[in-house]
Amino acid sequence: MIDLRSDTVTKPTEAMRKAAYEAEVGDDVYGEDPTVNKLEETAAEMLGKEAALFVTSGTQGNQIAALTHCRPGDEVILEANAHIYLFEGAAISAFAGVQPRPIQGVRGAMDPQDVAAAIRTEDIHFPDTTMICFENTHNKAGGAILPLENMQEIYKLAKEKDIAVHLDGARLFNASVASGISLKEYASYTDTVQFCLSKGLGAPVGSIIAGSKPFIKKARKWRKRLGGGLRQAGVIAAPGLIALQENVERLADDHHNANYLAEGLANISGLVVENNVETNILLVNVEKAGFTSDSFLKELKNKGVLAVPFGPSTVRFVTNYGVTKDDIDQALLAVQQLVNEI
Amino acid sequence: MIDLRSDTVTKPTEAMRKAAYEAEVGDDVYGEDPTVNKLEETAAEMLGKEAALFVTSGTQGNQIAALTHCRPGDEVILEANAHIYLFEGAAISAFAGVQPRPIQGVRGAMDPQDVAAAIRTEDIHFPDTTMICFENTHNKAGGAILPLENMQEIYKLAKEKDIAVHLDGARLFNASVASGISLKEYASYTDTVQFCLSKGLGAPVGSIIAGSKPFIKKARKWRKRLGGGLRQAGVIAAPGLIALQENVERLADDHHNANYLAEGLANISGLVVENNVETNILLVNVEKAGFTSDSFLKELKNKGVLAVPFGPSTVRFVTNYGVTKDDIDQALLAVQQLVNEI
Amino acid sequence: MIDLRSDTVTKPTEAMRKAAYEAEVGDDVYGEDPTVNKLEETAAEMLGKEAALFVTSGTQGNQIAALTHCRPGDEVILEANAHIYLFEGAAISAFAGVQPRPIQGVRGAMDPQDVAAAIRTEDIHFPDTTMICFENTHNKAGGAILPLENMQEIYKLAKEKDIAVHLDGARLFNASVASGISLKEYASYTDTVQFCLSKGLGAPVGSIIAGSKPFIKKARKWRKRLGGGLRQAGVIAAPGLIALQENVERLADDHHNANYLAEGLANISGLVVENNVETNILLVNVEKAGFTSDSFLKELKNKGVLAVPFGPSTVRFVTNYGVTKDDIDQALLAVQQLVNEI
Amino acid sequence: MIDLRSDTVTKPTEAMRKAAYEAEVGDDVYGEDPTVNKLEETAAEMLGKEAALFVTSGTQGNQIAALTHCRPGDEVILEANAHIYLFEGAAISAFAGVQPRPIQGVRGAMDPQDVAAAIRTEDIHFPDTTMICFENTHNKAGGAILPLENMQEIYKLAKEKDIAVHLDGARLFNASVASGISLKEYASYTDTVQFCLSKGLGAPVGSIIAGSKPFIKKARKWRKRLGGGLRQAGVIAAPGLIALQENVERLADDHHNANYLAEGLANISGLVVENNVETNILLVNVEKAGFTSDSFLKELKNKGVLAVPFGPSTVRFVTNYGVTKDDIDQALLAVQQLVNEI
Repeated sequence: MIDLRSDTVTKPTEAMRKAAYEAEVGDDVYGEDPTVNKLEETAAEMLGKEAALFVTSGTQGNQIAALTHCRPGDEVILEANAHIYLFEGAAISAFAGVQPRPIQGVRGAMDPQDVAAAIRTEDIHFPDTTMICFENTHNKAGGAILPLENMQEIYKLAKEKDIAVHLDGARLFNASVASGISLKEYASYTDTVQFCLSKGLGAPVGSIIAGSKPFIKKARKWRKRLGGGLRQAGVIAAPGLIALQENVERLADDHHNANYLAEGLANISGLVVENNVETNILLVNVEKAGFTSDSFLKELKNKGVLAVPFGPSTVRFVTNYGVTKDDIDQALLAVQQLVNEI
Repeated sequence: MIDLRSDTVTKPTEAMRKAAYEAEVGDDVYGEDPTVNKLEETAAEMLGKEAALFVTSGTQGNQIAALTHCRPGDEVILEANAHIYLFEGAAISAFAGVQPRPIQGVRGAMDPQDVAAAIRTEDIHFPDTTMICFENTHNKAGGAILPLENMQEIYKLAKEKDIAVHLDGARLFNASVASGISLKEYASYTDTVQFCLSKGLGAPVGSIIAGSKPFIKKARKWRKRLGGGLRQAGVIAAPGLIALQENVERLADDHHNANYLAEGLANISGLVVENNVETNILLVNVEKAGFTSDSFLKELKNKGVLAVPFGPSTVRFVTNYGVTKDDIDQALLAVQQLVNEI
Repeated sequence: MIDLRSDTVTKPTEAMRKAAYEAEVGDDVYGEDPTVNKLEETAAEMLGKEAALFVTSGTQGNQIAALTHCRPGDEVILEANAHIYLFEGAAISAFAGVQPRPIQGVRGAMDPQDVAAAIRTEDIHFPDTTMICFENTHNKAGGAILPLENMQEIYKLAKEKDIAVHLDGARLFNASVASGISLKEYASYTDTVQFCLSKGLGAPVGSIIAGSKPFIKKARKWRKRLGGGLRQAGVIAAPGLIALQENVERLADDHHNANYLAEGLANISGLVVENNVETNILLVNVEKAGFTSDSFLKELKNKGVLAVPFGPSTVRFVTNYGVTKDDIDQALLAVQQLVNEI
Repeated sequence: MIDLRSDTVTKPTEAMRKAAYEAEVGDDVYGEDPTVNKLEETAAEMLGKEAALFVTSGTQGNQIAALTHCRPGDEVILEANAHIYLFEGAAISAFAGVQPRPIQGVRGAMDPQDVAAAIRTEDIHFPDTTMICFENTHNKAGGAILPLENMQEIYKLAKEKDIAVHLDGARLFNASVASGISLKEYASYTDTVQFCLSKGLGAPVGSIIAGSKPFIKKARKWRKRLGGGLRQAGVIAAPGLIALQENVERLADDHHNANYLAEGLANISGLVVENNVETNILLVNVEKAGFTSDSFLKELKNKGVLAVPFGPSTVRFVTNYGVTKDDIDQALLAVQQLVNEI
C-alpha cells in the first residue's frame, strides 16, 4: 500500500525507536523528565519564545491556547476552513466556551480588512474578541503557506486592540522549509504557536505549544485538566527531539514529491489539480474523470494507493516520509489505469 | 423626540398598565400564577404547540432552545447575521457549549443546499449537528420575511437527519401580519419557536418559548438556572396577554409607516434604501449623501429623530407603536434638512 | 388557605400595583428606564456599594457573581446547605464552570479555620479558589443570622488571599431588621451582595446585585447573556422601590409571628422546633408526633394551612406579609387538631 | 535518592523499553495501531467489559466518564476526598459542567444511606443526579480497598435510579492483588472503569477507560476533543501491555514493603501511622515528633529519602517498583536519625 492519506501516518524511524528505548526519563508531572525538559527548551529556542510545553496532539495545543487566552462568552476570529473550527469536534465552544467567528480566506489567508471589520466594538450585545487564529500551512487550502506580510498586518491590528494571536502551526515546519522564512520569523507575529512533531516530522506522538512564561504556566494547568499531564513522557519526547534534529530539512523531499505527483496527475485527462502545490498537500478534482471522491478512492485502494476525500469531488494526497519518488511513479500509474478503465 | 431606534422602545399602553394593576397573581415558581398560566396557554394555542413558557427576553428563549436541544460539543447551523449569533454575547457557546456554523443567506434565508452541505457526517473529528435556527422576520436583513417554502424545505431536511429546528421569531407576528401566513403555519415547520411580547406588540417585558411538552418541561429547569424563574410574574404577563389580544393587527400600521418612510427617504438625494421593506424595519445607506452612519445619526438626533447605526454607512429605522404617520412626516422633514445642509 | 410555604408567595400590595400602573418607563437595555435607574441607585446607596443592577431573581444575581468573579476550573467555597449549592440546579458548574467546595457550617456560619483550610495552595493538581459565598439569613439553617464577626473574619482571610467574597443576601433585610445591624455594615464585609425584592419585602419580581462599578459593568453583560436584559422594566422596578421604601420595617412583624408560631408549636406534644427562630423561618420536626413531613403536610393542607417539607421529618413554616397573627392562631389550632387526631 | 513520593515515579523496565522499541504501530486516529488495539482488547477482557480505550492519563479517563455520562447542570456524587474532586483542577465542572456532591466516607467508602439521601428528587430547583463515582484503592484514605459489598450496595441503588456508576480505579490492580477479588468482579459493580498503567504497574504513560460499546464510541470523540487522540501510540501502548502481562503480581511486593515500612515507622517514637496499610500507601503523622509535614520532608530529603505532604502534619509514603526492601531499611534508618536529631 502506498499511503498518501496524511503525513500523520508516518511511522517512527529507527533513530526515533532507539531514542525511545534509551530515553532518560522522570515524572513529568513533577517536571522531572529530562528528555521532556530538553524537548521543551529546544522547541522554545527554535521558535524564539520564552517557554514551551509538550502536549499530546495539535488539537490539545490549540484548545489550551483558547482556554488560556479567552474567557467563556468571548469570540475568536479564525479562517472559515481552519482546523480548529472544522476538525476539533467543536471543542473550542465545549471547553473554552468561546464562539468562533469564521472569515472566508484566500488560500487560508484572511483579508486584514475582514478581520478588522469582525473585531467587536464595545456593546452590551457583543462578545469580546479576544483571540485571532492563523493556520500555517493551511490544511484545507491544500497546504498553502500563509504569507508573512499577512501575519504581520493582522498581528499589528490585533496588538492595537489587545487581542491575543495564536498560530496553529501543525505544519509550520513545512511552511518554513518551503518559504525559507525561519520559524522565529513566523513566530514573531503571533503570541502563541503550536506545531506537531507527529506529522511530516515523523515522530510517533506529540505537539508543542509555545509562548510567554506566564502563558505556559497557565497552559500547564489546563493541560493537566485535559488529561495531558504525563508521567515518564521522555519515551515519546525523545523521538520528538530526533524529529527536530534530523527530519526538518527532509520535508523538502515531500514537497518535491508533491509537486512531482501534481504534475503527473495534471497530465491525466479529466483530473484537475485544485491547489497551487506549495508544500506536501495536493487537492485533485476527479469529477470530470467521471468519479466522485468516494468512488475514486475505493477503486484506487484496490490498486494499492490510499488517499482521503476532501469534498464530494475532491481528493487529498499528502506526501510524507513513508513515500518515495518510486512510490509516486507507481501511484501515478495506478491513477492512470483507473481513469483509463472508466 | 421621534424614536425610530427599535420597536423595543415601545411603552406599555393604558390597557397594559391597567392589566398589570389588576393582574391576578401567584407564585409562578410553584406554577400558581393564573395570569402567567393563561398567557402560556394562549401562546401555545396561537402557535399550535403543546406547551409554552414565559421567559424574560428573546435571548433567554433562544438560549433555552440551545441548552435543551443540544449538548456541549454540538454544532448549530444558523444564518450568518442571525441575532443568536451576532447579538447574544456568544452566550450559545458560553452556556450551551455549542459551536455556531453560520451560513450566509439571502434576505435572511439560508439556501437549503448550503444547509445540507453544512450538516456534519459521522467522523471522529466532527461535532454532531443538532440544531438549525431560523430567524423570521430577520432583523439584520431589514425585517425580511423568511419564505414559508424555505422553512419547509430546511425543516424536511432537518427531520430526515433527526436535527432539531428552532425559530427565533422575535418578530414573527410582523411576518404573519405582513404575509398573511398564520403563526400556526410558520410554527408547523419548526420544533420550537420563540417570540417577543416586548417589541412591536408593545408589552413592557417578556417573550415566549413554545414546543412539545417534554421540551417545555426541560426548558423550565433551564429557565430556573438562568434566573428566569419569577414569582408574581402575572404583573408582566398581564400586559403580555393584552399585547396578544389587542396589538397584533395594528402591526400593519407599522409596516405602512415603514413603507411610507422608505418612499420618502428614497426621494431624498444621496440616500439609498438598502432593503425591500416588507415589515417595520428600514435600512438606509447614507454614504452618498456625505455621511457616515455615526455622523448622520448625531445630526439627526439634534433635529429630534433617533435611529441606530447598522454598519459604517447604514442606518436602521424601525417603526413602532409610538410613532405616528405625522411623526414620519416630521422625520422625513428632518432628514431632508440634514441632507440639504451638508 | 393560610400560606406559610414561603415568603416568596407574597402578593403585591395596593401601593405596589399602583406604582406599576404609574411607572415612568424606558428601554432598560439602553439604560433609559428612569424607574430602574432609581431602584439601582437606591439599592446601591442602601448597601454602600458603588453600583447595583436589577436582576430577575436571586438565582440570577448569584450566578452573575460567579460568572463575573470566576473563571472555569476555579473553586468556590460555600456553606454545605447554601442555596447556591443546593437549590440552583447546579447552574454554578453548568454556566460558570466552577466547582463548589462545601463546608458544613453551624447555623449557616462556616468556621473560618475550615475556610482557611479549604483555600487551595498553588499546585498543578489544584483549582484556584476565587470566591467565597455567604448566605445571610441562611434559609436551610432556619433563617439563621450570620454573625457579623463571622463575616468579618472570613472576609479578612479572603482579602489576604485575593479571593472575591459574595453574599447571597436573598433575605438580608430580615437579618438587618432582626439584628439591628445595618445593610451597609453587612455589605462592608463582602465584595458583592445580592438581595431579593420578592421575598419578605413583597415585590412581585426581582432582585438586586451590587458591587463595584467595574463589577457591575461586567455583570450587566452577563445579565444580557442570561436573558435578564429587560425592556420597560420600570413596571416591576416600581413595586421594588415601594418594597424598599415601605416594607422593610414591617419584617419585624413576620419575625414576631414566627416566634409566636414557634412557641405555639413547641407546646404541642410530639412537635420539636429545630431551630432558634431569629427571623421568619421555622423548622419543626414532626416525627415524634407520628408523622413524616409529607403525611403531616398533606393533612395540614386539608385543614387549610400550607407549609413545605425540608427533610423526611422536617417541615418549614415561613411567615410573611400575607399572614396575620390571627392566621397564626388559626394555623396553631389546625396543627393541634391534626396531632390530636393521630 | 529513595523515592517514596508516589508510584507514578516508576521508570519503565527493560522489557517495556524493548517493547516500545519494537512496537508495531499505525495511526490510532484511524484505528490502525495494532498495539493499541491489542492493549484495548486485553484491558476490556481483563475487566469483563465490552470495550476499552487507551487514554493519556487517569484524569483524562475520569473526565471522559463525566463528559459521556452527564450533561451540564447534572450532579455527581463522589467521596469527599476523591481524586476527581480534589486533584483534577475542578475539570469536572470546567468541562462537563457538572456539580460534585461530596460525601465524607470511611476509609474511602461512602455509606450507602448517605448516597441514597444525596440522590436528588425531581424538583425545579434541583440538578439531576446522573453519576456516582467510586475510587478503589482510595488514595487520600491511604490506599484503602473499597469493600466489594459497599460497591454492590451502591451500584444496586444507582441502577434502581438509572444513575451511571464510574470507578476511578487508578490503583484497582493494587486492590485486586491485595484482596484477591478479581478485576472482573470489581468491574461488575460499575458501568465504567478507569485504571492506570503508569502507577504501580510501571508503564511510562497511559490509562484505560472501559465500558459498553456505545459508551466507548462516545468516549472516543470526547478523547479527541481533549487532545488525547494520538497517532503511532503503539510506542506507549506496548509498555502498557508489558505492564499488564508482567507487573501485576509483583504489586504484592509493594504491599509487603509498605507494611514493613509501616511497622518500622510505628516503632519510632512520636510517629503515628494513620492508616491501616492495605496496599502500597502509608500515611504518617509527624506532629508528636515535633515536625510539620514540610519540615519533616525537607530534612528527610537531605538524608536521601523523598515523600510528599498530605496535610499539615501528615506525610505520605508510596512503595513502588523502584524501591527494594533494602531501600526501606535505609529509609527507616534515615527517619530514625531525623527524629533523634530533633
